[in-house]
Amino acid sequence: MEVRARAPGKIILAGEHAVVHGSAAVAASIDLYTYVSLRFPTPADNDETLSLQLKDVSLEVSWPIARIKEAFPNLETQIPPSSCSLEKLKLIAILVDEQNIPEANIGLAAGVTAFLWLFTSVHGCKPAKAVVNSELPLGSGLGSSAAFCVALSAAILALSDSVSTDFSHQGWQVFGENELELVNKWAFEGEKIIHGKPSGIDNTVSTYGNMIKFKSGDLTRLKTNMPLKMLITNTKVGRNTKALVAGVSERTMRHPTAMASVFTSVDSISNEVAAIIQSPVSDDLAITEKEEKLAELMEMNQGLLQCMGVSHASIETVVRTTLKYKLSTKLTGAGGGGCALTLLPTLLAGTVVDKVMADLETCGFQCLLAGIGGNGVEFSYIGIPDLGANGRNLS
Amino acid sequence: MEVRARAPGKIILAGEHAVVHGSAAVAASIDLYTYVSLRFPTPADNDETLSLQLKDVSLEVSWPIARIKEAFPNLETQIPPSSCSLEKLKLIAILVDEQNIPEANIGLAAGVTAFLWLFTSVHGCKPAKAVVNSELPLGSGLGSSAAFCVALSAAILALSDSVSTDFSHQGWQVFGENELELVNKWAFEGEKIIHGKPSGIDNTVSTYGNMIKFKSGDLTRLKTNMPLKMLITNTKVGRNTKALVAGVSERTMRHPTAMASVFTSVDSISNEVAAIIQSPVSDDLAITEKEEKLAELMEMNQGLLQCMGVSHASIETVVRTTLKYKLSTKLTGAGGGGCALTLLPTLLAGTVVDKVMADLETCGFQCLLAGIGGNGVEFSYIGIPDLGANGRNLS
Repeated sequence: MEVRARAPGKIILAGEHAVVHGSAAVAASIDLYTYVSLRFPTPADNDETLSLQLKDVSLEVSWPIARIKEAFPNLETQIPPSSCSLEKLKLIAILVDEQNIPEANIGLAAGVTAFLWLFTSVHGCKPAKAVVNSELPLGSGLGSSAAFCVALSAAILALSDSVSTDFSHQGWQVFGENELELVNKWAFEGEKIIHGKPSGIDNTVSTYGNMIKFKSGDLTRLKTNMPLKMLITNTKVGRNTKALVAGVSERTMRHPTAMASVFTSVDSISNEVAAIIQSPVSDDLAITEKEEKLAELMEMNQGLLQCMGVSHASIETVVRTTLKYKLSTKLTGAGGGGCALTLLPTLLAGTVVDKVMADLETCGFQCLLAGIGGNGVEFSYIGIPDLGANGRNLS
Repeated sequence: MEVRARAPGKIILAGEHAVVHGSAAVAASIDLYTYVSLRFPTPADNDETLSLQLKDVSLEVSWPIARIKEAFPNLETQIPPSSCSLEKLKLIAILVDEQNIPEANIGLAAGVTAFLWLFTSVHGCKPAKAVVNSELPLGSGLGSSAAFCVALSAAILALSDSVSTDFSHQGWQVFGENELELVNKWAFEGEKIIHGKPSGIDNTVSTYGNMIKFKSGDLTRLKTNMPLKMLITNTKVGRNTKALVAGVSERTMRHPTAMASVFTSVDSISNEVAAIIQSPVSDDLAITEKEEKLAELMEMNQGLLQCMGVSHASIETVVRTTLKYKLSTKLTGAGGGGCALTLLPTLLAGTVVDKVMADLETCGFQCLLAGIGGNGVEFSYIGIPDLGANGRNLS
């Protein structure tokens, strides 16, 4: 019995940092995915381990089921989702420590911890093999950890009793609303293990796809009415998100009046972006007009981010390089390096895109092309046993 | 009888562009000057011409006094200052046309026109020789035309009956308040000939020196309480000021709410800059603190100017180059090229300044060091006839 799930990454289209100070922000899914395959061994496999393979970082960890049973003498599966207790976190930490995961990447151990907790919370002590691979660069602000948690939760739930699914369906299929809510909640709990205090934005975008406006803790799902294509440039410059957020707060304390207006301006920009994306598109001309407005709003937002002090030389290089081709760019996420977004208008020639990407890659950056605002998490059953249209065999 | 006058250039410390939309702005004089020497020939010179030499552009024009009398049959000197009538402007244009001034530089002909009008308005048809040279790059937003008009008006008035001056004084001397007002008014009329609709800011800063806050047409003279040193980088990129101003207005029409907050933020920044400059300095630590605040406000202002769309790749290059040395830079004036300001803290080592300048000059830029907020227009008599302490001989 095997399921494959994929969950998209995210970008912040407008409002990062300012959202901490009460402005609206807009996030969107991108059609770059993290994939999780989850398989229960057949009796013929004679496999009594729980294993996780992270292909992109060439890491494989596994525990004999007996070792997990020993570590969790009183393990009970839990529905509905709830937070991981400190007690259980400590028990899991022991199991994770046994695997000698490279210390250089703290995120890896946290990801393995989230996996162990999510899987055992739903399925208890059961042999299984999870394989993860991703199109998202890790730790670059594109929501790779949320996509991991969402795809993992989706795969885990698709093989559980809590989700009623159609095994006869070929290819990717979507969950119903209730199942999506369940996936999102579990993923959020996974994100808590990885990030401590996640905003819930990344997992929500990855779960539901499309776009989300968020302000003062409230999330509103937006229905986009226009296709949007972005060039995402990963500067590969590492950031300290906490320090960047703190820097904006300190600047706000030093210059409260000026910064308040900056945040108000960002709020207007986010609202404009949301309105443009949701307004119906009548023809090509209208699309071009909307794209021009979005590009201008992105340029304005980038100036305001520079005003907050969270841009970076590498981001400015992307801004200037793309400006040569009359394309607008803003940083996305925490800034101080990380990724930049460049709007690629519908009518832009492919040869221009190739040139821009070649220029950026010459600077040592990684370029990714992404459609914006597509589907959220999806899953697909592989090697379905012949049970009839609505059959079910999860053991 | 000869007088020499010098008038400083200016920078905009905060608020350019936003000032058009109601925000406050702060301008300051810089200790880079335009010099005008004005000499009435002695009978022994046997010189019956009116001539103007612009040393920096290697231009010399001159008219026989008889030709000027012919061109202005009813010439009357005028006090107080008033605008040049269209009729007189046409007559002057004929005289200027006779000089075959290179057409490539429209500003030159306008400067010559302003000279002819200012001189003849005060002194009528009289032989004289004016020699002009300047430390200010022309047409780069440092107020070179205003400094020309102010220094010219000062020299013309210093040799007229309208100004009572102390011939016994050695070296540079300052005018009294009434004379300054007269110089400023005449210079403003000169600026009108050169620029059409000047704001009056450049000539006011050049006349009075120090700093000026301006908002909605009101000018307030500020008394600075701290020495400020700036590196001025002339990118040598030419701009179209009118197009840049129009661009900001168009962006404001497209995104009125977001831009209104941007202008409000700039207003706060200008007010903060003015407050910091005027607050008393107690010790070195306080100076450093003030400089850090000013640097941060300049960085913020630059972000907001980028948000308005008036920055330029060349300006961003200056920003990034100076940022390597932890120095803050903003564009000054119209943007779209032109000049950038970099704050040089009091305690910054000279070797660092040398390195930054070398880096910027490698980019093809011109670097100028300037003290900010010094004296306005000054003058000095040369070769004074022995008339006793309060003597006067102007013919």
